[in-house]
Amino acid sequence: MYRTNTCGELRLANVGQTVTLAGWVQRSRDLGGMTFIDLRDRYGITQLAFNMETNAPLCEQARKLGREYVVQVTGKVIERSSKNSKIPTGEIEIEATDLQVLNAAKTPPFTIEDQSDGGDDLRMKYRYLDIRRNPVRRNLEMRHKMAMLVRNYLSDRNFLEIETPMLIKSTPEGARDFVVPSRMNPGEFYALPQSPQQYKQLLMVAGMDRYFQIVRCFRDEDLRADRQPEFTQIDCEMSFVHQEDVLNMFEGLSKHLFKEMKGIEFDKFPRMTWHDAMCLYGCDKPDLRFGMTFKEVTDVVKGHGFSLFDGSELVVGIVAEGCAEYTRKQLDALTDFVKRPQVGAGGMVYIKYNADGSFKSSVDKFYDAEALKAIADKMGAKPGDLMLLLCGPAMKTRAQLCALRLEMGNQLGLRDPQKFAPLWVIDFPLLEWDDETQRYYAMHHPFTAPKPEDEPLLDDPSRWGDIRANAYDIVMNGTEVGGGSIRIHDRTLQNKMFHTLGFTDEKAAAQFGFLMDAFTYGAPPHAGLAFGFDRLCSIFAGADSIRDFIAFPKNNAGRDVMSQSPAPISQEQLDELCIKVDVK
Amino acid sequence: MYRTNTCGELRLANVGQTVTLAGWVQRSRDLGGMTFIDLRDRYGITQLAFNMETNAPLCEQARKLGREYVVQVTGKVIERSSKNSKIPTGEIEIEATDLQVLNAAKTPPFTIEDQSDGGDDLRMKYRYLDIRRNPVRRNLEMRHKMAMLVRNYLSDRNFLEIETPMLIKSTPEGARDFVVPSRMNPGEFYALPQSPQQYKQLLMVAGMDRYFQIVRCFRDEDLRADRQPEFTQIDCEMSFVHQEDVLNMFEGLSKHLFKEMKGIEFDKFPRMTWHDAMCLYGCDKPDLRFGMTFKEVTDVVKGHGFSLFDGSELVVGIVAEGCAEYTRKQLDALTDFVKRPQVGAGGMVYIKYNADGSFKSSVDKFYDAEALKAIADKMGAKPGDLMLLLCGPAMKTRAQLCALRLEMGNQLGLRDPQKFAPLWVIDFPLLEWDDETQRYYAMHHPFTAPKPEDEPLLDDPSRWGDIRANAYDIVMNGTEVGGGSIRIHDRTLQNKMFHTLGFTDEKAAAQFGFLMDAFTYGAPPHAGLAFGFDRLCSIFAGADSIRDFIAFPKNNAGRDVMSQSPAPISQEQLDELCIKVDVK
Repeated sequence: MYRTNTCGELRLANVGQTVTLAGWVQRSRDLGGMTFIDLRDRYGITQLAFNMETNAPLCEQARKLGREYVVQVTGKVIERSSKNSKIPTGEIEIEATDLQVLNAAKTPPFTIEDQSDGGDDLRMKYRYLDIRRNPVRRNLEMRHKMAMLVRNYLSDRNFLEIETPMLIKSTPEGARDFVVPSRMNPGEFYALPQSPQQYKQLLMVAGMDRYFQIVRCFRDEDLRADRQPEFTQIDCEMSFVHQEDVLNMFEGLSKHLFKEMKGIEFDKFPRMTWHDAMCLYGCDKPDLRFGMTFKEVTDVVKGHGFSLFDGSELVVGIVAEGCAEYTRKQLDALTDFVKRPQVGAGGMVYIKYNADGSFKSSVDKFYDAEALKAIADKMGAKPGDLMLLLCGPAMKTRAQLCALRLEMGNQLGLRDPQKFAPLWVIDFPLLEWDDETQRYYAMHHPFTAPKPEDEPLLDDPSRWGDIRANAYDIVMNGTEVGGGSIRIHDRTLQNKMFHTLGFTDEKAAAQFGFLMDAFTYGAPPHAGLAFGFDRLCSIFAGADSIRDFIAFPKNNAGRDVMSQSPAPISQEQLDELCIKVDVK
Repeated sequence: MYRTNTCGELRLANVGQTVTLAGWVQRSRDLGGMTFIDLRDRYGITQLAFNMETNAPLCEQARKLGREYVVQVTGKVIERSSKNSKIPTGEIEIEATDLQVLNAAKTPPFTIEDQSDGGDDLRMKYRYLDIRRNPVRRNLEMRHKMAMLVRNYLSDRNFLEIETPMLIKSTPEGARDFVVPSRMNPGEFYALPQSPQQYKQLLMVAGMDRYFQIVRCFRDEDLRADRQPEFTQIDCEMSFVHQEDVLNMFEGLSKHLFKEMKGIEFDKFPRMTWHDAMCLYGCDKPDLRFGMTFKEVTDVVKGHGFSLFDGSELVVGIVAEGCAEYTRKQLDALTDFVKRPQVGAGGMVYIKYNADGSFKSSVDKFYDAEALKAIADKMGAKPGDLMLLLCGPAMKTRAQLCALRLEMGNQLGLRDPQKFAPLWVIDFPLLEWDDETQRYYAMHHPFTAPKPEDEPLLDDPSRWGDIRANAYDIVMNGTEVGGGSIRIHDRTLQNKMFHTLGFTDEKAAAQFGFLMDAFTYGAPPHAGLAFGFDRLCSIFAGADSIRDFIAFPKNNAGRDVMSQSPAPISQEQLDELCIKVDVK
């Protein structure tokens, strides 16, 4: 070892010991007679003291060290005269007697500090320097700890981690696959898994009963902000279980993580049907850190001559408590917010319920005080509150009001990243209509089981949109961190599902034939769930972006700017793979 | 839950309880008045009893169950009249009161028994049935347990598991990469990692100090028997360490695994230089479960008029203790063995040192008893032993004798798969000459450091073959299960190494530029090691093939015969990726 101790462990109790440390020069201060160096490693910072009087050559040498030099120092642990209470090693320093430069360093392109002066692009290009910074390092340490907790929790409950293949068969259903040309089978391709879905179901058929895997998955999608082409899932599947068993198991895991990582204990997580989530929050992943639930007032507002409301399928609003004092400027800004193309509302109606009991609204022309009072009563507003209303087609209006609610939550400081509000959303629709292709798609995936009581509706295409699935999401702070479903284990029902999704028998057989075959050899009832691990880490850390929880992320164009990947490959490689590049 | 208990847990203590079990029908016996069914799940087998007298309809129903049907049974735990001491649940049975068929099953294409009647191809096609068999299931359970032990051991020692990217840059050095066309960057490709080598070194530059990852790696090689295109490594790297520290750390991990998995405790693992391994065993991964080390007799055998020996660079042999009684037929078979093209020897010389002190050899024409005695003395043979000698160019002859030694070990039953002989092989050569391309290649990889005392030899191309590396392999029972090296952390030395390997500055920069850049910003001394996890599992289980330690392996043509992957992809997919298939 180049060291006897790390830079984070020495204390007053070690005073008098001779130690050797190795690490990076964080900073140095030359005070004439003394030179002090902060030596950093993953575990902390220890101050080194070089004395011009007692050892001038060594002190001279220390003065020449640049930032981020890698050095090895031997010396005696002594008590500091001026202590630093901000760091755990702040009561001691090392009186250096020997110094070896293990490696010099060029001046880094940005400061290795908690608040770096490096922009995102620079930090990504020199990611190996960025990781030296405490915030990034801590994220990766946290991720490791979370993964260990998950593995031990599940392993203690008889789950087996089983590795499934990365080179699998391409299935056009769903998102785009990344593909891998096979040299040994010219003209043929593997795909990288979007999830181990089929393999984990096969493992249930194989009797493996409780499976999990922390596993890399791949999706060749046009990257939105904070999406990565490769991401990590905590992928789980269980046999002989009902939905209740699955929810309890993974609620238990989530509580365990909250307790161990954050010291927070939860009672039972709340549950909400998809239908309620849509009506009360306008989305399937409500942020429950604050209330401000939707109040539908369609019937109350109609018949007052306000044609916009009169002609709307839905008029719905939220009550911002104590916000009756909002200024014209603030209200205009909110109107601008909902009119942004990303939100897409035509406008916004406000009603101030003033502290004195009077009303002021943007629709005073149509509604007198009595009418406004009726709306306020319906919405549960009280004097001092502000009501914000949107109108239009039901689902679109709800989505718009959802954006407005979250914006109000932000403005009012109701979305504290260190506060946690978990939620199960259950009873998702089985099928989702797609206007563009004029067909239904599986909302979760084609293996999700309908609720048994809704199964007969599969025979009536006009009712397909009403079929509820035994599917569930786990939501935290307005973000979906995981989801899953009870699977279909009956081949007849699975065939019916494929037909509903527009698969011919041939197409179903070609794509999922081996899974369908497997189902004829004794498939147990089974169900599963997958957490997005990158996202789960970011939520636990109270961070917005997943990027800093991934050691070497890619940018929004799918590029690794550090290694300059992807890149062209040689003609020889292309020839061996029997492919040609064909860029138009 | 569909069950209150598993099929492996009920005992006499549970007698009188009403339980529900779910599982697969292993077998059923119809004894007229009674029908017995063995119900199987991952945890064991429990006998179900159906009584024609007390519940005829239920018994009738039970009689109709086929093998591998999935059923749910409720009943009372009762003591068996005729107990089965071979299974843990053998003292009880379930007096069934309710039976639900959860899923019917077609007759499986092979028997779900420890010794199946299914051939390899059939087992792979129906792998989900194969995994139901105890031996395969136990292998996967063992693999899970090993992975957990590794993770907890390393995590307890401050190692962080850090996930590195799977979509990386292609580097032509080394084996062939699998590549992945990038849709978002037309004409460009990612590669799948052959190992996270560069990323783990970057993590050391990033100060992460102790890294590990149980990680999938990919190599597009022509598959020899028991090679897989995707395989799993336990990949590790440490900073501020010397070779001794690395060997101790991973010897500790290996001992921990032996103790926990096999109940075996080891003293210090033996160590052997690569040079000694080659001279004493003819290969760099000696099987130390038995001795039979090589004895060089070149100087003793020369000058007796036997031109084959006289003209050979090396004459070397082994002593098979107590084998002087080998028959002519046995000796001919050994000669045939060494003459097989896979071994490639021209012939074999034997000398029997008979129990009575006389000699009989295949070269009696040239060597009298005295001369043969001299050879026997040099080889340490005693009456009753058999000496087997090969001759020719030194390295080739050693490799041939290595094969003969292992064959003798097999014949004499000296290679017990339940006996374990670990070994460190150290001081590997840094460079390896390739006749075909007429250049040196890195034996380990281009980042491996030469031994400091051999570094000056880099300036003398005639001595390149003599340079020893700080590289080491961990060998068990004649199989390399892991290997690693001290890395070069100095850019100047790394550049010299690249030049030695025939890289131009441009080529080195294009391929490894970002790693070289990283080394200028304060790289610590570092070293690492990677275990082949699939192989490690098979060695611990005393098995020859890695295939049954992988849930869904591929065959020797890289195909998954279950999912029929790889497969052609759609024209639409090809167009989006801007590639064309070009099969000649």
